[in-house]
Amino acid sequence: MDRVDHFGRDLFVVLDREDGRPLRVQLEEQLRDGVRSGRLRAGTALPSTRALAQELGVARGVVVEAYGQLVAEGFLVARRGSATRVAKVAPAAGPAPAATAARLAPVRFDLRPESADRGAFPRRAWLAATRRALADAPDADLGYGAWAGAPALRAVLAAYLGRARGVVADPDHIVVTAGITQAIALLAGLLHARGARRVVVEEPGFWQHRTILQRAGLALAPVEVDERGMRTDGLPQAAAALVTPAHQMPTGAVLAPERRAALLDWATAHDALVIEDDYDGEYRYDREPVGALQGLGGGRVIYLGSTSKTLAPALRLGWMVLPGALAGAIADERGWSDGGSPALDQLALATFIERGELDRHLRRMRLRYRRRRDRLVAALGDHLPDAEVGGVAAGLHITVALAPDADVDGVIARALERGVAVFATQHAGRALLLVGYANIDETAIEPAVRALAAAVRG
Amino acid sequence: MDRVDHFGRDLFVVLDREDGRPLRVQLEEQLRDGVRSGRLRAGTALPSTRALAQELGVARGVVVEAYGQLVAEGFLVARRGSATRVAKVAPAAGPAPAATAARLAPVRFDLRPESADRGAFPRRAWLAATRRALADAPDADLGYGAWAGAPALRAVLAAYLGRARGVVADPDHIVVTAGITQAIALLAGLLHARGARRVVVEEPGFWQHRTILQRAGLALAPVEVDERGMRTDGLPQAAAALVTPAHQMPTGAVLAPERRAALLDWATAHDALVIEDDYDGEYRYDREPVGALQGLGGGRVIYLGSTSKTLAPALRLGWMVLPGALAGAIADERGWSDGGSPALDQLALATFIERGELDRHLRRMRLRYRRRRDRLVAALGDHLPDAEVGGVAAGLHITVALAPDADVDGVIARALERGVAVFATQHAGRALLLVGYANIDETAIEPAVRALAAAVRG
Repeated sequence: MDRVDHFGRDLFVVLDREDGRPLRVQLEEQLRDGVRSGRLRAGTALPSTRALAQELGVARGVVVEAYGQLVAEGFLVARRGSATRVAKVAPAAGPAPAATAARLAPVRFDLRPESADRGAFPRRAWLAATRRALADAPDADLGYGAWAGAPALRAVLAAYLGRARGVVADPDHIVVTAGITQAIALLAGLLHARGARRVVVEEPGFWQHRTILQRAGLALAPVEVDERGMRTDGLPQAAAALVTPAHQMPTGAVLAPERRAALLDWATAHDALVIEDDYDGEYRYDREPVGALQGLGGGRVIYLGSTSKTLAPALRLGWMVLPGALAGAIADERGWSDGGSPALDQLALATFIERGELDRHLRRMRLRYRRRRDRLVAALGDHLPDAEVGGVAAGLHITVALAPDADVDGVIARALERGVAVFATQHAGRALLLVGYANIDETAIEPAVRALAAAVRG
Repeated sequence: MDRVDHFGRDLFVVLDREDGRPLRVQLEEQLRDGVRSGRLRAGTALPSTRALAQELGVARGVVVEAYGQLVAEGFLVARRGSATRVAKVAPAAGPAPAATAARLAPVRFDLRPESADRGAFPRRAWLAATRRALADAPDADLGYGAWAGAPALRAVLAAYLGRARGVVADPDHIVVTAGITQAIALLAGLLHARGARRVVVEEPGFWQHRTILQRAGLALAPVEVDERGMRTDGLPQAAAALVTPAHQMPTGAVLAPERRAALLDWATAHDALVIEDDYDGEYRYDREPVGALQGLGGGRVIYLGSTSKTLAPALRLGWMVLPGALAGAIADERGWSDGGSPALDQLALATFIERGELDRHLRRMRLRYRRRRDRLVAALGDHLPDAEVGGVAAGLHITVALAPDADVDGVIARALERGVAVFATQHAGRALLLVGYANIDETAIEPAVRALAAAVRG
């Protein structure tokens, strides 16, 4: 019983029914601590939910929920039909600290590179757009809608993406999605069904998107990222490449022009697709945003965008611009999976963009984010003068490289003790702190960086 | 070149560039006519989109869109990774006439059993609920939300479903979905990944849900439906049974009490799940609605509901109530597929239900639908006195059995010529017209039935 041993000897789960906190929360915390401390090693198979529930004398749902939460946080990996295991990336990197933070100390400074500024969501303008959508939608629009998305929204998006991102989009080639997560899930399913087996991903890259590809049965071919984005010399044979050219996630690099061309050449040579995740492409600070790769791609690029970084992840609205031959197939995948996006939300977004509200909001936010970024870089210069700061040209986070021998877990834990929530990743043998500025007030940046610097110095 | 021959000899697609209508529309119409007339036989493989586009001299997207539309309408079947084929059910049944209708003649009388009354959507109350959700949601709710759904909505749903449908629901066992389509797609994926290979379905049954199960790799085990619902003597071995106990789709039968018990016994004996699609369970006219099967199910029933028949399909909001051990796994499937439902919509629905607006709306609509149903049954008695009328006790459609030798295609076509859109299905060797009354005014019922009767008599 190897599995149970892990829990008997290495983990020591102790649930305290007098503790006041739900048993699920206690279990989550102890599993999380076990992974972070290294007591539960990467790859370790956890007991089945049934077995652990029995062992602990709790309802199975408690264990199911706890496992699910930790999978969502990236500590555990659930593979369909096999045991849940301890994630490989968990101890050193990933979005792990968030949940721990909530318990260790109140988060005073939120530097997680997670979403747009949640406090800046234009509630009033969004309500006005919703009111208009409700007033104008013909009754027919309240039935089952087009799987590809509301025609009105697709027309508005085609114009917006052309103007804002240099995307060449016919409304008929756009499929509205619930966000980039769904776009990648739909693509992964379709590509696999059509025989694809391998996808190039950036190394390091965004772990959630990797998981989605793997769940669809696709193997990953990681390709190194440097300060000019993903390296394009020696790209391997693959059916597609998933890339973040505007602002690489997580390193913040912007894909260099010659590499853009090389990537497209590779796609042509291998009859492959380039999947362009333009997750925060609207934010560029040193000059006009570089247009999307899709504009150069000649029918080989699938462009993905969403409102998660411009408005709010909670809207669950995004879009794909596809080569013509794929648009219908992806719309079908969408339809069979959930019937399409809610019509009123789509019509509200169409109105919101058409009225210029998105442009207005972005202008305001670009200015605000830019000021925060400038303060952040300046404060890092003051408090961590030796740190290498990267990814400053675009996006909503920057990177701070730690010394090669730095104890990144210790840094994150000490930051949390000081009320600073921050993520980390590994890159080229060193730990990178990912310092987001979307959810921190300009005036809070100086004290936040001071606290972070203290944590880095130990 | 067998495939091309079908188009050379049997179909004669002729696209007329002077016609004024888009080429896609013309192609759709001719393919649809080919299927409906029987020129294109069930199972026939269509040429690839590339080949047909070349042959016709049109952009490939035109063909992709046309195929996609006809798959959505049920004329064609797309299997991942293989040729698109002519559907088996298409000539005689299914939701086919809708699109043809739109072209043959304006639809004056909409008797399709498709959705709730689209004109009755409570726009003002929904806007008020949205306004409240936008005013009250803390900033944190605008980020990425819980994959299982907003806790506030799950709590409200647990109370509502207990009260309205006799569902035993812990909020932690509820997963919010984009509707019943998504619920079945998530379940099908999870069940298949866990080794399930076969699912019992009702015969006749709803073709879309069958397609979703098949797309996930599950085989169907159809079980005959009679006037007491699905027969439960001799249910085969299967991992699950997908049933519509409150109002069988399409026959309208209500599952008899002893069959409810037998179905649950079968589930226990075979360690199987019962998937209860309660798509219009809120509508029962002869007495209080029969409670959901889930309330008796002892942890073997997965309950599915949505707002599509009570409010509007366009909301894309539904729910699953799951045995505890499955709730976390389904929430994970949901999360990895699209990140969950939009938070503001969920909070609006929670507010809408909490304020009693859903109950108010349902009281009003039950009365209205009941009056329409009564008129419909009376008018059928006047104009088609020999017709067998079924499924009257509940739901939003009734059935009219045609004579065994009736030409159902002819009936539907003649009805369309008179401006009546109606669906049909096959049951026990006879054609059943499915006559919906959700989208027809009470005063229009008499002339609609008169026109329908004329179409039936030929």
